[in-house]
Amino acid sequence: MAVLGLALFLPTLPAAAEDGHDLWLRYLPVQESRVAAYRAQATELAAATATPTQRVARDELLRGLQGLLGTAPAVVPKAGRAGALLVGTPASSPQLRALKLDLSTLGEEGYLVRSVRIDGRAATVVAANTDVGALYGAFHFLRLIQTAQPLDALDIREVPRTKVRVLNHWDNLDRYVERGYAGESIFDWHRLPGWKDPRYTDYARANASIGINGTVLNNVNTSAQMLTPMYLEKAAALAEVFRPFGIKVYLSARFSAPIEIGGLKTADPLDPAVRRWWKAKTDEVYRIIPGFGGFLVKANSEGQPGPQDYGRSHADGANMLAEALAPHGGIVMWRAFVYSHEEPDDRAKQAYTEFVPYDGRFAPNVLVQVKNGAIDFQPREPFHPLFGAMPETPLMMEFQITKEYLGFATHLAYLAPMYEEALRADTHASGPGSTVARVVDGSLDGHALTGMAGVANIGVDRNWSGSHFDQANWFAFGRLAWDPYLEAEAIARDWVKMTFSTDPAVVDPVVAMMMGSREAVVDYMTPLGLHHLMGRGHHYGPAPWVAGGPRADWTSVYYHRADAKGIGFDRSATGSNAVAQYAPPLAAQFGDLSTVPEEFLLWFHHVPWDHRMASGRTLWDELVLRYGRGVDYVTGMRRTWDGLAGKIDPERHAQVAAFLAIQEQEAQWWRDASIAYFQTFSKRPLPAGAAPPAHDLEYYQALQFPFAPGDGK
Amino acid sequence: MAVLGLALFLPTLPAAAEDGHDLWLRYLPVQESRVAAYRAQATELAAATATPTQRVARDELLRGLQGLLGTAPAVVPKAGRAGALLVGTPASSPQLRALKLDLSTLGEEGYLVRSVRIDGRAATVVAANTDVGALYGAFHFLRLIQTAQPLDALDIREVPRTKVRVLNHWDNLDRYVERGYAGESIFDWHRLPGWKDPRYTDYARANASIGINGTVLNNVNTSAQMLTPMYLEKAAALAEVFRPFGIKVYLSARFSAPIEIGGLKTADPLDPAVRRWWKAKTDEVYRIIPGFGGFLVKANSEGQPGPQDYGRSHADGANMLAEALAPHGGIVMWRAFVYSHEEPDDRAKQAYTEFVPYDGRFAPNVLVQVKNGAIDFQPREPFHPLFGAMPETPLMMEFQITKEYLGFATHLAYLAPMYEEALRADTHASGPGSTVARVVDGSLDGHALTGMAGVANIGVDRNWSGSHFDQANWFAFGRLAWDPYLEAEAIARDWVKMTFSTDPAVVDPVVAMMMGSREAVVDYMTPLGLHHLMGRGHHYGPAPWVAGGPRADWTSVYYHRADAKGIGFDRSATGSNAVAQYAPPLAAQFGDLSTVPEEFLLWFHHVPWDHRMASGRTLWDELVLRYGRGVDYVTGMRRTWDGLAGKIDPERHAQVAAFLAIQEQEAQWWRDASIAYFQTFSKRPLPAGAAPPAHDLEYYQALQFPFAPGDGK
Repeated sequence: MAVLGLALFLPTLPAAAEDGHDLWLRYLPVQESRVAAYRAQATELAAATATPTQRVARDELLRGLQGLLGTAPAVVPKAGRAGALLVGTPASSPQLRALKLDLSTLGEEGYLVRSVRIDGRAATVVAANTDVGALYGAFHFLRLIQTAQPLDALDIREVPRTKVRVLNHWDNLDRYVERGYAGESIFDWHRLPGWKDPRYTDYARANASIGINGTVLNNVNTSAQMLTPMYLEKAAALAEVFRPFGIKVYLSARFSAPIEIGGLKTADPLDPAVRRWWKAKTDEVYRIIPGFGGFLVKANSEGQPGPQDYGRSHADGANMLAEALAPHGGIVMWRAFVYSHEEPDDRAKQAYTEFVPYDGRFAPNVLVQVKNGAIDFQPREPFHPLFGAMPETPLMMEFQITKEYLGFATHLAYLAPMYEEALRADTHASGPGSTVARVVDGSLDGHALTGMAGVANIGVDRNWSGSHFDQANWFAFGRLAWDPYLEAEAIARDWVKMTFSTDPAVVDPVVAMMMGSREAVVDYMTPLGLHHLMGRGHHYGPAPWVAGGPRADWTSVYYHRADAKGIGFDRSATGSNAVAQYAPPLAAQFGDLSTVPEEFLLWFHHVPWDHRMASGRTLWDELVLRYGRGVDYVTGMRRTWDGLAGKIDPERHAQVAAFLAIQEQEAQWWRDASIAYFQTFSKRPLPAGAAPPAHDLEYYQALQFPFAPGDGK
Repeated sequence: MAVLGLALFLPTLPAAAEDGHDLWLRYLPVQESRVAAYRAQATELAAATATPTQRVARDELLRGLQGLLGTAPAVVPKAGRAGALLVGTPASSPQLRALKLDLSTLGEEGYLVRSVRIDGRAATVVAANTDVGALYGAFHFLRLIQTAQPLDALDIREVPRTKVRVLNHWDNLDRYVERGYAGESIFDWHRLPGWKDPRYTDYARANASIGINGTVLNNVNTSAQMLTPMYLEKAAALAEVFRPFGIKVYLSARFSAPIEIGGLKTADPLDPAVRRWWKAKTDEVYRIIPGFGGFLVKANSEGQPGPQDYGRSHADGANMLAEALAPHGGIVMWRAFVYSHEEPDDRAKQAYTEFVPYDGRFAPNVLVQVKNGAIDFQPREPFHPLFGAMPETPLMMEFQITKEYLGFATHLAYLAPMYEEALRADTHASGPGSTVARVVDGSLDGHALTGMAGVANIGVDRNWSGSHFDQANWFAFGRLAWDPYLEAEAIARDWVKMTFSTDPAVVDPVVAMMMGSREAVVDYMTPLGLHHLMGRGHHYGPAPWVAGGPRADWTSVYYHRADAKGIGFDRSATGSNAVAQYAPPLAAQFGDLSTVPEEFLLWFHHVPWDHRMASGRTLWDELVLRYGRGVDYVTGMRRTWDGLAGKIDPERHAQVAAFLAIQEQEAQWWRDASIAYFQTFSKRPLPAGAAPPAHDLEYYQALQFPFAPGDGK
């Protein structure tokens, strides 16, 4: 009671409270028992400071070690004591050069972290060919301490497996973030370039710490205004902040910009005036933003302008921009998320249909950016059939970090298992083992230009991502973009240690919670391969009854096709035959009701309600039980989290607890509304023990959310 | 150089840096020399904790004293030591009751802070009739220490002079803030009521500390959805957080809600079904939000629905709502900011014309809320002629805290001198001395229901108000709502001491900067009575050339009327005769070119370019010089601020410096664009020494700002 009394006396913590703003770079003191050993292995820091990147690496090490070990090492011109930390490149440090380390395979971004002896004294060296490589190595070194690893006998060699590791911000110039659930855009366009918020520096630090080397500042549904000099000057101010951290600025380009801001009558990519306009505009961009990365384009998709408006192909459009960018070393990221306005076919098939014929026709500095699945970032989708189907074209992975379809910011859903599932999927394109990861990292087809994009979940919310746990998805994306072969669980373990605590009594249960959390969302929203059943427009909450409106493939009924006989989208040979877009072994597996994995059952097949599942239950019973299993998982997460009170700082504990309560309510809502609706088709009773929905179907159908965040506009 | 070197090592401060989030409640340690004396006068705290309000008062004192003095006093059941602080009411503390203080004039919100002796020992007592009075007193006690005042021989008696002291949030349910320049709304409607951001508590603390006792959560241009159960539950969650701090929740009500969410065919205020609907809705509001304050209504103004849609009067509309609220003790705040869609007359005259005939016809629980001037929150306006013209009706003052027309968040403009100017204006309604303050506080016409509203400048920006100095305008509004007779300079002095430093080397120059800053805005934007010359829609930047569009009185040319002969709006007897709406002595003064104050010259008169000013200069030369004087003032502020480097924490110093640089650029832009434009009419050369505009007029006219923040939508 005495403790409770004290808590009452000062119920609100000062502003320095654990509000999550420091992300995984908290640098709180390590366990007392480890301090001495770590200090002995970071007695002094020998690091050059001649360049901005060298200075940010040095600053980060001092900040990190000061926080973790309670004291920052002395900065010295060269390592002279036992336990020195030597950071740099052969060019920046003669002492490092004298070590004659083999850096030949590190490329421009890789690094070594190695225990060495210098003049007979133990030391640790972080070595790279470039300053930014050394910066990445510095973050790695700090991460070792943050995650309570030993610093003895280090022999780490890291090289990123993809070249372009970028965030895609769906941020509008008025700071509205499409599909953003963490507040408005961190990019304060109105006050740029005059005011450079210190937050931009923290953003760059966070990204560099996980290996992200680029950012697309504006929404793929963009205004052409972004390319006007006024906005380019603003973007240049951001680029200047980001540059020392190895982060390039990219911009989404509106295909019709030559008309809208160029005064031309057409944006036809084969029109010489249009090509001249883009060339001049690109030259101007590079004058204003040195080191600019390139353009991201959403064309002929969901109403955006594009080359097809002029009877030209995606390749024509992309190559026009590529030509303008090539002299500057810039690239085009051309999105494959397209589907025709005329809906001639199963939407899942259209990107493949439109892009495969152009394989090999894209300029060498074009990446085709493909979402992990063919519909749209659903809680679970089979991998996109384009992966493996365009061997002559480098395909860039596009993951969504923001949880448009996985419960917005309040639902705890760790997405790395979903990313991992997609990356490990075997396309069979060149026989077994032709994983999506090998397509993306270029190893399958020998591409040097490779990349991964993540649609950012970042906004002005104090904790950046809208919830503390959503920070893990940003972190995991960065780590997987660097190395698509990492394990989701290992990433979670690092993140929990860096973000909450290295205490196993925290790490183990929290990692366990996280690892099952995405499957729980699949269960309570869209089990067994169901998809696209959310509220219209804003995508908030269940709405499997959505029908009508401008196009069938924006409705729920298009996707679930429930009727008296059964439920599911027949994409087998008897249906849309989307299975045929996969390599033959997969086409056979997915196309056969007896071999299709149950998690994709209703994605590929229209299945009778009484179909017998592996469990021995009918499909209907299994469906109902899966919904309930998802809700139960959330209840379990609440229980686990409540048990961690006292082990997590009260401020973050309270927010997570409140969000889990919301999640539990909303999971129940998803379950109840879905069951109430599908039961009107199945006409079957709920299986024994399953509670009836809390309300009748009309109640759920009447709910309206006109102000739900993140809706497209 | 050593110091500089260190700064380079750790360029970014940790999250606890001085980011302005603590507002004027920073509670940093007082000057070392004063600590001992203060500690001796706060040796222990005797304060009851039986009610939520008692607890927040106690918590604030502990937090404040801990911060200011480095140690929090012991909490004791009754004062027993010399230097005790006794806080409470006769009901909460027998010891306080035994002091037999005269609390009879304190009412429900007033308080005493007095040095007394208890059992022969010196003590300080904070006494009130109510818990919230004691809370206000606690904040006053802390303010004495924050502003380095002695605590000896205290004999403070404070009673608020207005009853309803409210913020008006022009915040939409999607978190967009109309005329907001501090980011989106702090009210996170989507995550309410499940998630109550700790920020709501800090918001309540800040408001209570300056005496604000109510808040209107939603925009006057409101959606009817606000009154649906789902949103009322969300508002109730906020009300629950605010209640202990003496802050009532009010809501803007959309007049047509009975149609939009009630399913009625009409919103006619004399229709019995409509009246029943509002009665039932109001009862429901009180069920869901105990202690609800009442409704704010913008009706028949700028396209909003209202009683005139049905041929009824503002009194009919207001009284219908008043009747529904009266049983619960609620009030209506009915805005007088109206002007007809048909523009029959000078817009400045219309509110008066519409409202004066209804004086005495409003129900007793209706306040008519009147902006300080008749146009719309311009940098300078003469006081609104309604003040003094409706003696039978309580008129509530509406000030704008957000700087819609004074440079958004980046311009440093301390608004208290503007508020003070309006409050001290003499209406002459009941002879000399009939100041606006006396109208507002009810003393002129004997009204008990009184109030002041401030359109909030609050958003999710870390420093709440978009800039550090804009916090002063929130602070000043609260203080003036409590006591409209306070001096702007004294308020500034308190604020600077509480916010930046008690060092006179900071206080004196910063207060001086602030005191002239609003006049500087008047000079560089709209000197000599000019008004409403800003960009269309968003109101960003100069655009005196704005003409055409849906209505004349939304243009600039309507207001400045520049032509070959002169400039200004003739509101004298030869023009619109708006002067006749003022009491005769003022009408005569304003209406005569030889007696009108120069600051209102072009507000009331169309004046020849060669008119001789008091300075001896022609109007044209004077106009040009005033523009330049405004720019020069900003240059001077920059110089002053630069001189304070090292005396202000680096983080806030840097932001203010960056904003002053923006302000200087934009002041120059205002001057140059305005001169370039008006010179096309005056055809006169610039006076000697005045630099020509940096660009030609076409340049300024071509500037477009489609994404400027805060535009209405």
